[in-house]
Amino acid sequence: MEQRLQEVIGRIQPLDSLAQRDARVRQAALTKPAGSLGRLEALSIQIAGITGQAVPKIEHKVVVTMAGDHGVAAEGVSAFPQEVTGQMVSNFLRGGAAINVLGRHTCTRVVVVDMGVAADIAPHPNLLDRKVAPGTGNIARGPAMSRDQAIQALLSGVAVVEEELTKGLDIVGTGDMGIANTTPSAAIAVALMGIAAAEMVGRGTGLDDAGLLHKVKVVETAIAVNRPDAHDPLDVLAKVGGFEIAGLAGVMLGAAAHRRPVVVDGFISTAAAMIAAGLAPRLRQYLIAAHCSQEKGHRIMLDWLGLEPLLDLGMRLGEGTGAVLGIFLVEAACKILAQMATFGQAGVSDRESA
Amino acid sequence: MEQRLQEVIGRIQPLDSLAQRDARVRQAALTKPAGSLGRLEALSIQIAGITGQAVPKIEHKVVVTMAGDHGVAAEGVSAFPQEVTGQMVSNFLRGGAAINVLGRHTCTRVVVVDMGVAADIAPHPNLLDRKVAPGTGNIARGPAMSRDQAIQALLSGVAVVEEELTKGLDIVGTGDMGIANTTPSAAIAVALMGIAAAEMVGRGTGLDDAGLLHKVKVVETAIAVNRPDAHDPLDVLAKVGGFEIAGLAGVMLGAAAHRRPVVVDGFISTAAAMIAAGLAPRLRQYLIAAHCSQEKGHRIMLDWLGLEPLLDLGMRLGEGTGAVLGIFLVEAACKILAQMATFGQAGVSDRESA
Repeated sequence: MEQRLQEVIGRIQPLDSLAQRDARVRQAALTKPAGSLGRLEALSIQIAGITGQAVPKIEHKVVVTMAGDHGVAAEGVSAFPQEVTGQMVSNFLRGGAAINVLGRHTCTRVVVVDMGVAADIAPHPNLLDRKVAPGTGNIARGPAMSRDQAIQALLSGVAVVEEELTKGLDIVGTGDMGIANTTPSAAIAVALMGIAAAEMVGRGTGLDDAGLLHKVKVVETAIAVNRPDAHDPLDVLAKVGGFEIAGLAGVMLGAAAHRRPVVVDGFISTAAAMIAAGLAPRLRQYLIAAHCSQEKGHRIMLDWLGLEPLLDLGMRLGEGTGAVLGIFLVEAACKILAQMATFGQAGVSDRESA
Repeated sequence: MEQRLQEVIGRIQPLDSLAQRDARVRQAALTKPAGSLGRLEALSIQIAGITGQAVPKIEHKVVVTMAGDHGVAAEGVSAFPQEVTGQMVSNFLRGGAAINVLGRHTCTRVVVVDMGVAADIAPHPNLLDRKVAPGTGNIARGPAMSRDQAIQALLSGVAVVEEELTKGLDIVGTGDMGIANTTPSAAIAVALMGIAAAEMVGRGTGLDDAGLLHKVKVVETAIAVNRPDAHDPLDVLAKVGGFEIAGLAGVMLGAAAHRRPVVVDGFISTAAAMIAAGLAPRLRQYLIAAHCSQEKGHRIMLDWLGLEPLLDLGMRLGEGTGAVLGIFLVEAACKILAQMATFGQAGVSDRESA
C-alpha cells in the first residue's frame, strides 16, 4: 500500500516551463498595462505551468469536503459537541450549509466524503463513504491512527480525485468538517515546524480564554505523548492527524499527479497541505492558498509552505468556503488570459507608440 | 440644475437599522459558528441596511464604466498616448477588454458611457453618449471644466443609474477609462485632504522614476494654478477633476438615492467617491471598496473615506475590474444570508448544547 502511495508521489512533475513562458508572452500582449492585473496574471501563468496548457481552460470545478471525527474532542477542545460533525454532513447533503450556497454561487461541484465520522450516516447518492474508522484515537493519550490507516486515508483521497476526474475536474478545492479538528491541525504544524503550541493554537469555532489555554496544553500533551517524527510526515499524520486531514492530503497528491491545480482552504486544509508537501516537495507549486483564516497560526503555516493567500476576509468556517471563492478567482485569471483581445487584435496603441 | 443635484442628495437616507437588526439575528441562526464568515457576514448586514430588506436579493448586477479624456495628458503624465482612451472604448464595445471578460465571468452587465472622450466614437447600441466635451482642460494651466459642466456630468451619472434601474439594477460597480486620469484623481485627493502630492501620486499605467517626479510636479502645479476650495467638492471637481470622475460620482449619488449599494473600483473611482461623499456625507454607508489598488495613495484615500477594501490582489487596471469581483463577493454574502439553513431547520446542535 505504501508502494502505491510512492507511485502517486513519483508521478508529480515539475511545472511546464514552456507553457508558462507562452502564457507570460500572451499576458504581455493583452490590452492592458503590463502587470496591471496583479495576482490574476501570476495565477494564470501558474495554472499554465500546472496543466501544461499555454491557455488553460477551467470548466469543471470541484470542491472535496471531507468529514471526520476526533477522539481529542473528549478533552473539551471545541465549543461545539461532537455530534455536530455528522449533523453537518447531513446538512451538506441537503444543500443547506455555507459550502453548498457558495458552491452553487461559483458553479463548483461539492463532493462530500465521510472519512471517519463517529456517527453512522445513512447512505446517500451524494455521499462518498470512505470511512476509515468512526473517529480517531484521542491524541492526548495515544496516536490518532495507525500508519496503515494513514496510508489508507491518503489513498482514499487520491482515489476520490481519480473518480471525479472521470466526471470532469479541472481544478479542485479542499474543504473539511470535523468537530475539534483545529486541535490535530495545530499539532501537525507544531510537530513539523517545531514551534511552541501557544503560537499555533487558536480559538477554533469560538473558545474563550480559559478554553484556549486548555487547548494549548492538550496540543503540548499530544506532542509529548506521541513524539511524532518531524522528518517523517506519515508519522506526524498518523500520530496527531485526522482522517479528513489525511484524505485531503491525498486529494492534493492525486490532483498534482494528474496536473490539476489545488486550491487550499483554511487552517485544517493547510495542515493537510503541510503533510502532503512533506511527502512530495514538488506539490507546493500545484497549491494556491485561497485565503488567510482568522484562526491563529494559519499565516505561519502559509509562510512555511511559501504560499500567499488570495483573500483575507476574516473567514474561519472551513468546509471549503474559502476554497470555492479562490477557485472563482483562479477561473477569472484563466478567462482573462484566454478571452481578452491583444493590442494587435483590438487596434489599441501599446505604450511604445507613446 | 444645481437644485436637481441637491434633490438627489437630499433623497439619500440613513441605513435601515431594523433591516440590519433582522439580518444580524438571521446570521446568528445560520448553521456556522457565529462570525465565522467574517466580512461576508458584515457585508450582508450592510446590504440589508442599504436596501431596507432583511434578506436582500441581488439579481441584476451592473458595472458602469465611464470614459473621458484629460487635457493634462499633454504634460506627458501617462505611459500611453491619449488615443488609447477611444480605442479602449471600442474594445469595450467589442467585448475584448478585461472588464468584458470579468463582467461575463460574474454575470454583471457592463454599461459603457462616453463622458468626454476626445475622439469621435461611432454610435453603437451599447454605448451611452453623454459627452460633456471632447476632453477636459489641462489642469496644469487652468480648470478642467466649468462648474456647470461638473454639475451636468454629475447629473448624467445620476440619469444613467435611473435608466439602468428600469432594466433592473440591484447593485452597481464603478469603472473608468481615461488616459492620464490618475493625475486628476491624485489632484482631487491632494485638494480635499491637503496632503503632499508626493504622497498621493503613483506610477499609473507604468511611469518610470523620472516620469513619476514630473507627475508630482504637474499635480502641484494644478493645485497652485487652480486653488481648489477643499470645502467645496464641486469646486475641486470642476477645477482638477475629469468628466468620467464626475459621472462616476453621479452614479454613486444616484444609486444611494435609490437605496442601491455601490461597489467602488480603484484609484479613480475612489477619487469620485471622495467628491460624492463630500457632497453627500450619508453616501459613505452605501459604499463598498472592492479592492486596494497598487496605485500609491489609494490606501490613504480609502482610509479617509473609512472604507476597508475586500480584495488586495495587486490590481491597478481600472475599468471596473476590481468592482465586478467585489460585486461577486457581495452577492455571495447575500446568498449566504438568504439560502443557508438555520440550526433549527437543519437539526444541528448549536454551541449551547455542548
